[in-house]
Amino acid sequence: MKTLRIGLLGLGQIGGGLYKLLRSKKEQYKRELGISLELAKVADIDRKKQRELKIPKSVFTTDAWDVVRDPSLDVIVELIGGTKIARELVKESMKYGKDVVTANKALLAEYGDEIFELAHEMNRWILFEASVGGGIPVIKALREGLVANRIDSILSIINGTSNYILSKMTETGADFEEALKEAQQKGYAESDPTLDIDGSDAAHKLAILARFAFGGRVKFSHIYCEGISKIRSEDILFAKELGYRIKLLAIAKAMHGGIEARVQPTLLPESHILANVNGSFNAILMRGDEVGDVLFYGRGAGSGPTASAVFSNLIDIALREGSRFGDRTMMMRGIRGNLKIKNISSILSRYYLRFYVVDKPGVLARISQVLGKHRISISDVIQKERSEGNVVPLYLLTHDAHENDVRKAIHAIDRLRIIRGKSQLIRIENN
Amino acid sequence: MKTLRIGLLGLGQIGGGLYKLLRSKKEQYKRELGISLELAKVADIDRKKQRELKIPKSVFTTDAWDVVRDPSLDVIVELIGGTKIARELVKESMKYGKDVVTANKALLAEYGDEIFELAHEMNRWILFEASVGGGIPVIKALREGLVANRIDSILSIINGTSNYILSKMTETGADFEEALKEAQQKGYAESDPTLDIDGSDAAHKLAILARFAFGGRVKFSHIYCEGISKIRSEDILFAKELGYRIKLLAIAKAMHGGIEARVQPTLLPESHILANVNGSFNAILMRGDEVGDVLFYGRGAGSGPTASAVFSNLIDIALREGSRFGDRTMMMRGIRGNLKIKNISSILSRYYLRFYVVDKPGVLARISQVLGKHRISISDVIQKERSEGNVVPLYLLTHDAHENDVRKAIHAIDRLRIIRGKSQLIRIENN
Repeated sequence: MKTLRIGLLGLGQIGGGLYKLLRSKKEQYKRELGISLELAKVADIDRKKQRELKIPKSVFTTDAWDVVRDPSLDVIVELIGGTKIARELVKESMKYGKDVVTANKALLAEYGDEIFELAHEMNRWILFEASVGGGIPVIKALREGLVANRIDSILSIINGTSNYILSKMTETGADFEEALKEAQQKGYAESDPTLDIDGSDAAHKLAILARFAFGGRVKFSHIYCEGISKIRSEDILFAKELGYRIKLLAIAKAMHGGIEARVQPTLLPESHILANVNGSFNAILMRGDEVGDVLFYGRGAGSGPTASAVFSNLIDIALREGSRFGDRTMMMRGIRGNLKIKNISSILSRYYLRFYVVDKPGVLARISQVLGKHRISISDVIQKERSEGNVVPLYLLTHDAHENDVRKAIHAIDRLRIIRGKSQLIRIENN
Repeated sequence: MKTLRIGLLGLGQIGGGLYKLLRSKKEQYKRELGISLELAKVADIDRKKQRELKIPKSVFTTDAWDVVRDPSLDVIVELIGGTKIARELVKESMKYGKDVVTANKALLAEYGDEIFELAHEMNRWILFEASVGGGIPVIKALREGLVANRIDSILSIINGTSNYILSKMTETGADFEEALKEAQQKGYAESDPTLDIDGSDAAHKLAILARFAFGGRVKFSHIYCEGISKIRSEDILFAKELGYRIKLLAIAKAMHGGIEARVQPTLLPESHILANVNGSFNAILMRGDEVGDVLFYGRGAGSGPTASAVFSNLIDIALREGSRFGDRTMMMRGIRGNLKIKNISSILSRYYLRFYVVDKPGVLARISQVLGKHRISISDVIQKERSEGNVVPLYLLTHDAHENDVRKAIHAIDRLRIIRGKSQLIRIENN
């Protein structure tokens, strides 16, 4: 029987979950798969974990370096998180001849290029199914299942916290602050929710998807990132009225002249499959030249889904051990040079715009004139609660326009005397 | 460079598509994946295909037996279809030491047990991603990505023709015959649509999914199968009024005392993710004990999606070639004895019932009485177009009840004097 000797780093929620899964199902996996997964060494800085999880003393250590350098281990599972120590430990593991499984999206987004190159050099596997979409096997799908395809685009909901908040706002009419509070109470948002609501977490995951969808190195800082805290309940209501839903999308598209890669709140037609992904669920929609549209949906976080993904990577390693062919890391949509990510100002999109205006005759004409001057044409307009002299919201949808033009137009409009308060811009995706 | 020498059987829509894909992308695959996929032999009974597809004369043959016995080939791709010659050719291929890739769901559903056992015996791969869900990598997800999970249930829309017809009926209020005609005109239904609309095609695919979800041999004839031709536009309308959509679902559940496996029109709550899968799209929703709900969505048919799936299997074979470990066929959720499929009469479900009754006082009381006697309780009732003495439809939803009781009750109700015409029964799934 094939035995895989595993070193596990980190016994937080996910590491603890994986430890329990491997222990409780060990005999079953032996029987069904013919593979023995031995948790030979487990490290956490917190000594209490050893007793809490009933880990044999000979297996537990507080020194992660001791684990990554242990010559008797085959694979290191990195579940520490963060980009500092984790980065060093992952690299040391490979230098010591070990394959690596990680769920660390920040690490791969920011230092993926260096880590994948080292893996290539050392001829080691690095697998990371749990880093995007939790238990959804989307990385496997992208690298293996869809390998025949040129990937043209990815539209994805890959931050469960943001999706929960926007879903709540849509369902109940709550404003952002209320919905966030509820998400925190229910455990869908952390006490410091910054990385989730400002879009960084989704951008990390998008960096990983884009790398393997388009086959190239990705400079993380080039990914445009906008969060959801600017969304007001009135934006959601107005979008609804015109048949749209607002979702935080992570978008990557292969375009003429480079890749578009951006995280942004987005208006989606209500019949769009992603518009119907609600609560804390994740979904990734990819378009391939052969397969057309394919969508993967499931829970993007939590200890069960994450353990499921990490475990599948361990089996991948056990089963492909000894495969004579190919480069272990880059196999399937490998890294082929740098991807050029286009600046946000150069994209073409439809837009939702909201202005607060002093309600008097000629206001709409004035605004349309400025938009027109910047080559932006209006497809829909709604002005509500009309009462001359008061400040009222004015909602507009545009046809396709250049971001650069739209920003200039908004800048010009914001300086008009009739404008009160900050204007809103949300991009629209129609398909 | 790794070279895979391929023999292709069948140049119909799918085989022709695969031939073109492999030819047009051959150099790209060499460059990106380091694998050379050589279409070394191609067979079709129709000689014209050779010229149409511009296949070199030395590569083309009309004799499939010549291909499967060719010692220079590594893999046979079977795209002939049907269960007679295909069955013999697949077996002969393995006897001659070849791995096999097939899209033939009927073959695997009906003769999978014998074919998988032979593959096991001969230590050959048989891969079949294209047999379920077209280009959606659902078999890979089930066998590899979700390997950590005990699968508890599968709810799936895996016949595009039926889904197109039901979606049309829902959107436009068309009746079954009209919608079928439109599906035929648009190429979503064949001129003889029997296998699609009677549920057999979905049942074939369900047999494959159930085998690998639950790990056992499946007797195809034990899968319960009901098609969509009995669905009337009024059923769809009434379901809509109560917040439901009607979909043809292929369902497999691990239950106490055995597996439930059935294909049936089903009422789904409109907020259910599968209720929003429209047109010719397919979607497979699985529930695993670790991962929770995961859904895979995409085009279930067509030459591009199918070629994409077949191609991914060829890469699987090329990459795992030489893997020292394990049994090639049964790896990942292997076959472990026979699955017991429960008889439909033993299931528990909610039901939608429609009766045509003579409208007079006491009719509803009479029907409820019969249902009550059979331990069936009503959750919703609507009686429309009331006008005493006339025949009117009576719609009922029930709470959970035993199928056996429901059938007996309907049998008894159908013999009441107040009943006119055939009664309707559609099962409901709530989650």
